Amino acid sequence: MANSKQEVESLESLLESNLPNEELKQAWRLLYGSEYPPSELTIPKTATELASVSKIQLKTYQFTAAQEQLRPPRKVRIGLFQNQLPLATDAPVAEQRAALHKLAEKAIEAAAQCGVNVFCFQETWTMPFAFATRERLPWTECAESAEEGPTTVLLRNLAKRHNMVIINPILERDAGDVLWNCAVVISNSGQIIGKSRKNHIPRVGDFNESTYYMESTLGHPVFETQFGKIGINICYGRHHPLNWAMFGLNGAEIVFNPSATVGALSEPLWSIEARNAAIANHYFACAINRVGTEIFPNEFTSGDGKPAHKDFGHFYGSSYVAAPDGSRSPGLSRVTDGLLVAELDLNLCRQVKDKWGFRMTMRLPMYAELYTKASKPDYKPQVVSENERPRED
Amino acid sequence: MANSKQEVESLESLLESNLPNEELKQAWRLLYGSEYPPSELTIPKTATELASVSKIQLKTYQFTAAQEQLRPPRKVRIGLFQNQLPLATDAPVAEQRAALHKLAEKAIEAAAQCGVNVFCFQETWTMPFAFATRERLPWTECAESAEEGPTTVLLRNLAKRHNMVIINPILERDAGDVLWNCAVVISNSGQIIGKSRKNHIPRVGDFNESTYYMESTLGHPVFETQFGKIGINICYGRHHPLNWAMFGLNGAEIVFNPSATVGALSEPLWSIEARNAAIANHYFACAINRVGTEIFPNEFTSGDGKPAHKDFGHFYGSSYVAAPDGSRSPGLSRVTDGLLVAELDLNLCRQVKDKWGFRMTMRLPMYAELYTKASKPDYKPQVVSENERPRED
Repeated sequence: MANSKQEVESLESLLESNLPNEELKQAWRLLYGSEYPPSELTIPKTATELASVSKIQLKTYQFTAAQEQLRPPRKVRIGLFQNQLPLATDAPVAEQRAALHKLAEKAIEAAAQCGVNVFCFQETWTMPFAFATRERLPWTECAESAEEGPTTVLLRNLAKRHNMVIINPILERDAGDVLWNCAVVISNSGQIIGKSRKNHIPRVGDFNESTYYMESTLGHPVFETQFGKIGINICYGRHHPLNWAMFGLNGAEIVFNPSATVGALSEPLWSIEARNAAIANHYFACAINRVGTEIFPNEFTSGDGKPAHKDFGHFYGSSYVAAPDGSRSPGLSRVTDGLLVAELDLNLCRQVKDKWGFRMTMRLPMYAELYTKASKPDYKPQVVSENERPRED
Repeated sequence: MANSKQEVESLESLLESNLPNEELKQAWRLLYGSEYPPSELTIPKTATELASVSKIQLKTYQFTAAQEQLRPPRKVRIGLFQNQLPLATDAPVAEQRAALHKLAEKAIEAAAQCGVNVFCFQETWTMPFAFATRERLPWTECAESAEEGPTTVLLRNLAKRHNMVIINPILERDAGDVLWNCAVVISNSGQIIGKSRKNHIPRVGDFNESTYYMESTLGHPVFETQFGKIGINICYGRHHPLNWAMFGLNGAEIVFNPSATVGALSEPLWSIEARNAAIANHYFACAINRVGTEIFPNEFTSGDGKPAHKDFGHFYGSSYVAAPDGSRSPGLSRVTDGLLVAELDLNLCRQVKDKWGFRMTMRLPMYAELYTKASKPDYKPQVVSENERPRED
């Protein structure tokens, strides 16, 4: 909405504009774990045109795996969509939602033309990220039923039409008027497979989201779709390695991380956490962030000694896909709407699992015991001081 | 030892040589979470000279914290040392060790002149990284007693002389002739505080170290030194987030990760894993890697279909320190011996813990339960298929 002009387009564009070709290749290998130039997909011209008309940056990327004897390749195309708010935050809620729905239809249409099988939006994509305001109305009016809300209804139609699994991260109002930060998983048949909710709620800076909703009680579900086993780890859950690990233990092959986070707070962490999760858990991890600066009608403070203000900084986009082998795609823009279409060969997950063996060498029973001890109020940390011998346990 | 000429010096040098100043500042912020140029320390000229004569790249870096009212700053200087083998691997074992001891004395002397309080070597620093050969003699002769071996004896003297805690990662032979991958923690008083052993043993590529030693039974000890609470997570343990987390739960403020790893296998992971651990666990994480190519007397194969060979690639150095706030130091060289001296204000750990709150929001009791279930042979992963409702638990 504002300020985006002063923002750098992306790290990738800085490198590509300034490094000579040989140096760019070397830097790319060190940073992204893959060859330069990145391996792109062939997509129809109509998709490029539709994206261009809709001002959506369209980028593609291909992850490959070795050929096996007994399993055919399991190639799946995923679409990650990051977007700004099309309307100002003081527009009527219904109009804001309608404008977002319209944008979504275009993004999904472009994704369908690229052959996308699984599509995911950013966190609470049907509304401004208004939780810093701590205001109830009108923001809680943006909450919907996960099963019957207008967004799920729209996306069930689009999912069936395009034979596409769609992940729909919304502010959910359940039948008991409890609010949740939720992601609905809609099958390519148009049916709802299930939902996942945010497991960890931030209490940091402007992200005082505990004002609005509580931690999930739904565990770490992995959804078995026609296009692979997928999990959804919403936003702040990406800071918690124990959370990422449970999706892996439940068999996820792709974990989506729909997020909303701003530069001053988290940007140095962004390229690290989802990628580490992909490495540690032998699955693909997809980090999706909002983009743009959202300005609110009323001013609010941030508990940082600074004056009241009406925005909480620039959502820096930079959505990307990380692979189990440690490589990653380039990121989308830091300033514009974007659709990242990536082809994954899901066979890579088991191939890397067999190569690196983290699942086999993780000593899970030992950590189950240690965490059980460490979670008790009377836990005595294993600390060794001079003239003491280390404890054996 | 060889091939280092074709190797890139470092990612940092690529960026510094090619990016214009404004672009460099932006890229640096995105990549390292801090200002460019990096904040260095003032050190005596004698240290620079000694390092230079000994062909050790000397780099310094400063991490700061906010001023508090009740706690004074807790500034600690740490030294990370990465080195090549000074002699060929077919030199007599005693000569190889003597040459490494001589090099160590110089590095520690330079570190002492820089005011280093805690010094750490790379993994099994007193020997070639010979485990890929699967040969017993002469390599098992490089094993020493953690308490009474010649290296511990030498370092106890140096520790006392320089008022420096020294972490001594060696191949340990215990009283029962069991071999371990160990790190001895020697106090600045010259006394041994205790030891830590490698918790996770690789079975990947050439790193078939399970041939030589077993997983630690010593847990995740944190050593209370005069210069902060430190843990040692040896090499392959850096791939395991559950392992990193236990050091945090035991109160570590600095976790050292003495390692030995080569480019083709792990380089895209190197900058991610220790840094993610620093972020997730609110402590400083120090990644130290060997450097150079080590050529062995007899050829060996690698289980990758390729012909037998006498080395297993280039150890790429690149040692660095990552801070709990997500920032990190530049890395040491990919090709030369190096000493990284970093000043840490340990107050930053609790400051970031209070800001981000991962320890508070981690839901440890829930994960203790989930991991206990997941570690049982009859664990049924939480998988939701179409026309099933998600399980509530």
